[in-house]
Amino acid sequence: MQVRYILSLLMLSGAAANAQQKSIAGFKGDATVTQQQLETRFDQQISSAHIGETIRELSAKPHHVGSTGGKAVAESVLAKFKSYGWDTHLVTYQVLFPTPKTRVLELTGPTTYKALLKEPALKEDATSGQEGQLPTYNAWSADGNVTAELVYVNFGLPEDYEWLERAGIDVKGKIVIARYGHSWRGTKPKVAQEHGAIGCIIYSDPAQDGYVQGDVYPKGAYKNEYGVQRGSIMDMVIYPGDPLTPGTGATQNAKRLERSEAANLLKIPVLPISYHDAQPLLAALTGPVAPAAWRGGLPMTYHVGPGTGKVHLEVSFDWQLRPAYDVIAEIKGAQFPDQWIIRGNHHDAWVNGAADPISGLASELEEAKAIGELVKGGYKPARTLVYCAWDAEEPGLIGSTEWVEDHADELQKKAVAYINTDNNGRGFLSAGGSHALEPMMGEIAKEVTDPQTHVSLFERKRAFNAVNAASAKGKRDAMQQQDMKLEALGSGSDYSSFLQHLGIPSLNLGFGGEDNGGEYHSIYDSYDDYTRFKDPGFVYGAALSQTAGRAVLRLADAPALPFDYRSLQKTISTYTDELQALIAEMRETTKANNTLLNTQQYSLAEDKQEKLKLPALEEDVPYIDFSPLQNALSALDKATQQQPVNNLALYQAEQQLLAKDGLPRRSWYKHTIYAPGFYTGYGVKTIPGVREAIEQRNWKEAQTQIGIVADAINRLAVYLTAAR
Amino acid sequence: MQVRYILSLLMLSGAAANAQQKSIAGFKGDATVTQQQLETRFDQQISSAHIGETIRELSAKPHHVGSTGGKAVAESVLAKFKSYGWDTHLVTYQVLFPTPKTRVLELTGPTTYKALLKEPALKEDATSGQEGQLPTYNAWSADGNVTAELVYVNFGLPEDYEWLERAGIDVKGKIVIARYGHSWRGTKPKVAQEHGAIGCIIYSDPAQDGYVQGDVYPKGAYKNEYGVQRGSIMDMVIYPGDPLTPGTGATQNAKRLERSEAANLLKIPVLPISYHDAQPLLAALTGPVAPAAWRGGLPMTYHVGPGTGKVHLEVSFDWQLRPAYDVIAEIKGAQFPDQWIIRGNHHDAWVNGAADPISGLASELEEAKAIGELVKGGYKPARTLVYCAWDAEEPGLIGSTEWVEDHADELQKKAVAYINTDNNGRGFLSAGGSHALEPMMGEIAKEVTDPQTHVSLFERKRAFNAVNAASAKGKRDAMQQQDMKLEALGSGSDYSSFLQHLGIPSLNLGFGGEDNGGEYHSIYDSYDDYTRFKDPGFVYGAALSQTAGRAVLRLADAPALPFDYRSLQKTISTYTDELQALIAEMRETTKANNTLLNTQQYSLAEDKQEKLKLPALEEDVPYIDFSPLQNALSALDKATQQQPVNNLALYQAEQQLLAKDGLPRRSWYKHTIYAPGFYTGYGVKTIPGVREAIEQRNWKEAQTQIGIVADAINRLAVYLTAAR
Repeated sequence: MQVRYILSLLMLSGAAANAQQKSIAGFKGDATVTQQQLETRFDQQISSAHIGETIRELSAKPHHVGSTGGKAVAESVLAKFKSYGWDTHLVTYQVLFPTPKTRVLELTGPTTYKALLKEPALKEDATSGQEGQLPTYNAWSADGNVTAELVYVNFGLPEDYEWLERAGIDVKGKIVIARYGHSWRGTKPKVAQEHGAIGCIIYSDPAQDGYVQGDVYPKGAYKNEYGVQRGSIMDMVIYPGDPLTPGTGATQNAKRLERSEAANLLKIPVLPISYHDAQPLLAALTGPVAPAAWRGGLPMTYHVGPGTGKVHLEVSFDWQLRPAYDVIAEIKGAQFPDQWIIRGNHHDAWVNGAADPISGLASELEEAKAIGELVKGGYKPARTLVYCAWDAEEPGLIGSTEWVEDHADELQKKAVAYINTDNNGRGFLSAGGSHALEPMMGEIAKEVTDPQTHVSLFERKRAFNAVNAASAKGKRDAMQQQDMKLEALGSGSDYSSFLQHLGIPSLNLGFGGEDNGGEYHSIYDSYDDYTRFKDPGFVYGAALSQTAGRAVLRLADAPALPFDYRSLQKTISTYTDELQALIAEMRETTKANNTLLNTQQYSLAEDKQEKLKLPALEEDVPYIDFSPLQNALSALDKATQQQPVNNLALYQAEQQLLAKDGLPRRSWYKHTIYAPGFYTGYGVKTIPGVREAIEQRNWKEAQTQIGIVADAINRLAVYLTAAR
Repeated sequence: MQVRYILSLLMLSGAAANAQQKSIAGFKGDATVTQQQLETRFDQQISSAHIGETIRELSAKPHHVGSTGGKAVAESVLAKFKSYGWDTHLVTYQVLFPTPKTRVLELTGPTTYKALLKEPALKEDATSGQEGQLPTYNAWSADGNVTAELVYVNFGLPEDYEWLERAGIDVKGKIVIARYGHSWRGTKPKVAQEHGAIGCIIYSDPAQDGYVQGDVYPKGAYKNEYGVQRGSIMDMVIYPGDPLTPGTGATQNAKRLERSEAANLLKIPVLPISYHDAQPLLAALTGPVAPAAWRGGLPMTYHVGPGTGKVHLEVSFDWQLRPAYDVIAEIKGAQFPDQWIIRGNHHDAWVNGAADPISGLASELEEAKAIGELVKGGYKPARTLVYCAWDAEEPGLIGSTEWVEDHADELQKKAVAYINTDNNGRGFLSAGGSHALEPMMGEIAKEVTDPQTHVSLFERKRAFNAVNAASAKGKRDAMQQQDMKLEALGSGSDYSSFLQHLGIPSLNLGFGGEDNGGEYHSIYDSYDDYTRFKDPGFVYGAALSQTAGRAVLRLADAPALPFDYRSLQKTISTYTDELQALIAEMRETTKANNTLLNTQQYSLAEDKQEKLKLPALEEDVPYIDFSPLQNALSALDKATQQQPVNNLALYQAEQQLLAKDGLPRRSWYKHTIYAPGFYTGYGVKTIPGVREAIEQRNWKEAQTQIGIVADAINRLAVYLTAAR
C-alpha cells in the first residue's frame, strides 16, 4: 500500500558522477575488484523479460490476504525461491481481517440516489471481470448503520475543521464526505471521529485522481468515473500490524485483545466511493460555497453543506481471523551467519495488484534468482541473506509486523539492515531510509544506469531537480550537488516495524514519477494497465533489482559494514535547525495574528456577507531550550570523527536512538528520529516527539521530548565512542 | 470597459489614520476650515438612494454607442447636468463602430455542433429579454469566413505559444480557441494572428468565470453556462479611439484613414462564446493532454488539439460611422477659469450596463448634483469644473479619446487633472494615477468612511492587506504602513488619452473586491444583478462620490495645488530598482538555463514519452548602463527638495515626462513612465520603453530607452527647479 507520490519525497544530488565506480564503501583493494566482478555477474542474471513474466503470473488472479488466490501466490513465491536454490519456508500468522458483508450508501432526499459501489469490468482489461475480487471498501471501518446530514470537509485535515468551525458548521452527529489526497486516507475518518462525525465517506475527486489529470482508463491511465481506491484505515500511527496483538506475533495461541480494546481501530463506519457516486451527494449540499482551495474538478459549485436531505450509510463486515503466509527464504552466511541482511516486499494485493505489490516483488524475486545463480557458480555471501515476501501488508503492514514482533530479540541481535520495496514504475529513483546508509546508497545510485537515458540514476534525478528548480539559484545549486540525499521514512510499507519499532537500519527503494495513473487499489491495477502505463518493457523492474541487489550484496560482503554515522549526525542537525526555525516562525505568526485580532484588523478586512467567525487568539509561543539537543549533536559529531571498526557495533548502533517508552500516546513507535505523522499518516515527521509537540502547541511536552531525544543521541555518541 | 479585477492592483498603506483630518494639502489656516465645511456640506447632498434611482433609470434599456437607447441616455445625462445647474452641451463625433451581421460557429466533424451564440432571457432578470441588445461578439473582429482545424491555446499568451512550439504544434492556418483571463482579451487574437492563426475563439472557462467560482446566475452572481463576455479587441496598445482618426478628433470632416490602414485593427475573425458552446469544441480536440496550468473547469481532460474534425467560423459586420455623444458640463472657475479640473465616466454600455458604466456615472452625477446645490448656496469654485460623460468607451475609449485629441492643445494648457471612474462595487478603494497626487489621495482615503465598517477607506484596506499578507513579516509591515500607495495606470478606461497621450495628471477611482460575479459585458449586467450582488444599498456609490468629489473640490480650490513630485521621484526610483532586478534575474536565469541545455540536463530530466522539443538556447544577457536614469533621479530628487509655488508649473510639470516620438512602435503613447503593456493590454508597464525592451530581450533598445527616459526626468527636474 506504498504511497504513490514518492517522487516528490526524493532529493538527489551529486556532481561529476562516474558510471564506473572506483571504490566501494566498506571494501578495499582486491575485495573491491572482487565485489565489482560479482555485481557485474549479478547484473547479467537480471532479465526485464523475466520480471515481466513474474508480474503477469503473480497478478493473474485477485489475491488478498485470506483468499484462495492469496494462498496460491504465497505458494508460488515459495516455489520460486526454492527453485532458485534458497532455503525457504512459510510462516503463518492468524490475523484479523474484515471483509464486507453489507455496503449501502444512498441519498434519501430531496432527490434520491443509490450509490453503485462497483467498478465495471472493461473489455480492454482482461482481469477486470474476474471472480474473487474484494468489493470497494475501507478495511477497519466499524460496522454501522447511520442516517444523517452530510457535510463536505475537503481533504478532512484538522485545518479543514478549523474553517468549518469559523463557518459555524458542526459535524457532530453528521456524516462527512472527504476527498482523497493531502493526507493518508486513515487520517480522514480519524479526524472526523475526533470532531464527532458518525460516518465518513471518502471519494476520489477528478481534480486529484481523474479526468483533470489526464485521459481516463482505459483510454488513458487516470481514474474513470467508477474507479474506487480501496485501502486500510487502521490507525497505523498508533501501531500497525494485527490490531489484536500489539507488540507480539499473532501466532496461533497468542494472547489477543478484544476488538473493542484495539487502540488502532476507529468507531465509525467508513466507505470509499467513486466520483460518479460522489457527484449526486455533493450536488445536494447547500450551505456556504466551499473556499477556493476546497473546490474539486466536478462540474458544479462545491457547497459545504449540510443539505436539506440526508444520507444513509450502512456497512457491516465479516470479522474473521485469517491465515497470513509470510514466505521466508535464506542463504546462510559463510563468515557471519548471525548477521542478517533482510530484503522484503509484500505479496498480498487488494485485487490483482500488478503494480502494488507485484512489480516490486518481481524485482525482489529476480534478485533472488540472480543470487541463486551466483551461489551455483560458487559465490558464498559472507553474511546471511533473508529474502521475505510478506502477506497482509495492505490491511496494515500485518505480515511483516507480526514476523518482526515475533522475532524481535533475534532481529535486534542479528539484523544488519532491512531493504524494502513495494510498487515500482517508470521514472526516477526514490530512496529513503536510515541516514547512516546514505553514502552507500549514493554510490549505488551513481553506478546503476537509468534505462531510458543511460546515465546514472543519480545524474538523471539531479538533472530533474535542476531543471525543475524554481529559481536560477536553485538550478545552480542542484547542478552542483555532489551527493545523494536519502529521504526520511514515514510509513506505508513494510519497513515500519524494522525501523521504527526495533531500530534496525532500513532502506525503501523504488522508481516513479513518470508512471502516474488512477489504478491504485482498484480492479484496474492489472497486468494490462501495468504494461501500458507503469513500466512498459519492465526496464525499471530490472533497474530496481540492480539497485536493491547491490545494497544487499555490499551489506552482505563488506569487510567493514558501510554505515556512516557522520551522515546521520549531519541530517539530525538539519532537522534540529528546522525545528528551531519552525518554532520561531510560529512565534512570529502567533504574535502577528494576535495583534491583528486585538486591533480589530480581522473584522475590518472581512467580507461582511460571509459571516465567518474570527479565528481565536492563540497562546504566545515561548522560547524553549534546544541546548540539550545541540550539545548531544556536538557529542555525536565528536564521536563520529573516527569510524568504529566493530561491525556488530556499526549495525546495532541505530538501536541507541530508540526511546524505551516510545513516542507520546503511541509507545509502539520507539525511534526518536523517524516516525509517521500522527495527523499525516504515511508522511514522515522527523524528531517526531519534539516536532509534533511544537505543531500541537504543547510547549511542555516539546521541552520534555528534547531531553528524551538528546538522551538518545548521547547514548549513540557514547556507544560509537566505545566501539572505536 | 474597465478591468474588473482592480482590487489586486491596489496597495494601500498608512498608520494611525484620523477620521477627522486636521490639515489638507494645498490649504492653510482658514482656508482649511472653509474647505472642511464645504466638504461636509457636499457629503450632506450625497444620497445612496438617489444614486440607486439614477442607476435604475440609466440602465433601463440597452444603450450602446449608435443606438436609440444610447442617444436617450446621453440626452438624459445632459438633462440631469442642466437640472443641477451646470452649463452643459453635447459634443458629437462620427466614429467607426462595427455591429454584427453574420455570426456562425460550428464543429463540422467528427461530431457536429452548432454554437448557440445567445444568452437566454431569465425571469429573475427583468431587462434580460429586451429588444435592442447587441448580440454576443467582439468588436473589431475582421470580417471572415474560415474553416480549419482547432487548437486550444490556454490564455493565448506569448508563453503559451512557446509551449505549443515545444510540443510541435503550429497554429498557422488554424483557428485557435483561448480562454478569457490572464491577459486583456484583445491580446489573445493579436498574438494568435502573430503566430499565423486564421481565426480566434475566446470563451469563458468555468474555472475563471463560472461555477468553479460560485453559484451561477440567477442563483448566484457567477457566469452561467450561456453567459458571454462581449468586448473590444481593438489593439488599443497601438492607439485607442476611432481607428480611422489616430491623433485627431473624429469630427464630421476629419481626414480619415481607410479601414485597412488602421494599425490597431486585426485581420482575423474573432468571436467570444460561452462555456456551453465551448465544451463540444474542446471535447473534440485530440493531440497532447494540455499542461496542468492549461486545464480549466469543464468536466473533461483538456487536449491541445488539433482534432480530427474542423471548425467553421464566419462573421461579418456592418462597418458604419455612428454618432458618439459626449456630454460636457461646466461650472466656470471664479479665480482661475483657465485651470480645469476634469471629471469623467463613460455612459455607453455593451447592453444595459448597470455596473459598467452606470454605477460610476451615477456617482459622478451625484457629485454634480451636490456641487450644483453648493453653487446654489453660494459656493464658487476657484477653478473651472468640467464634468464629462463619454460615449463609445466600450469599443475603445473612443468618446474620450476623440475629445482629448480634438482639444489637445487647450487641454495641455488648462487641464489641471483628470479624475476618472467607471464600474463601481462593494469592497475596497482602488486608486491609481499620477504619483504626484499620491499624498492628496492618501489624505482623502484617510478621511472618507467605509460604509460597512465605519473606519476610513485607508484603514479598511490596510487591514485587508495585513490579514492577507503571506508572512508574519508581511502582516507586520502592512499594519505599520503610514501612507497610501497609488497604483500605476495601464489602460481600460477613459483616463488613457489624458494621461498617456497628453501627460495630464490623472486619477482612476473605484471600489471592488466584494462584488465578484460573471455579469461583465453580458445581458445580465442589469439593475437586478447590481442590487443583489454588486452594491446593494448603493452605499459604495455614495463613498465613490465622496472620494472623487473631494479630489475635485480640493483641486478646484487649493490655493497651492496639492501636487507632490517627491512622491513621483520615489516611485520612479522604485521602478528603476525593479528594472535592475529584472535584468539581473534574467541574466541569472538565462545563464542557468543555457547551462542546463549545454550539459544535456533538459534531455536527461524529460519524460521520454512526452516528446517535447527542448527549449532554445538564449543570448546571454549583457550588463547595461542604468546610470543616466540614476543620475536623472538624483537631479529630480534635488529639484523636489523644495515645492514650486507656481500652480501652472505644478500641473503642467507631468508633461515634461512625455517623449515626443512616443514609445517604440506606438508613438501615440508619449508618457515615459506609464503605459498599457504591449502584450498585457490593460495591465500597466511602468517605464514601458525600458521594461518592454528588456522583456523582449532587445538590449540595444533598452539602452536607448534609458536615455530617453533619463532625458524626460531631467527635463522635469530642470522645469521644477525653474518653477521654484
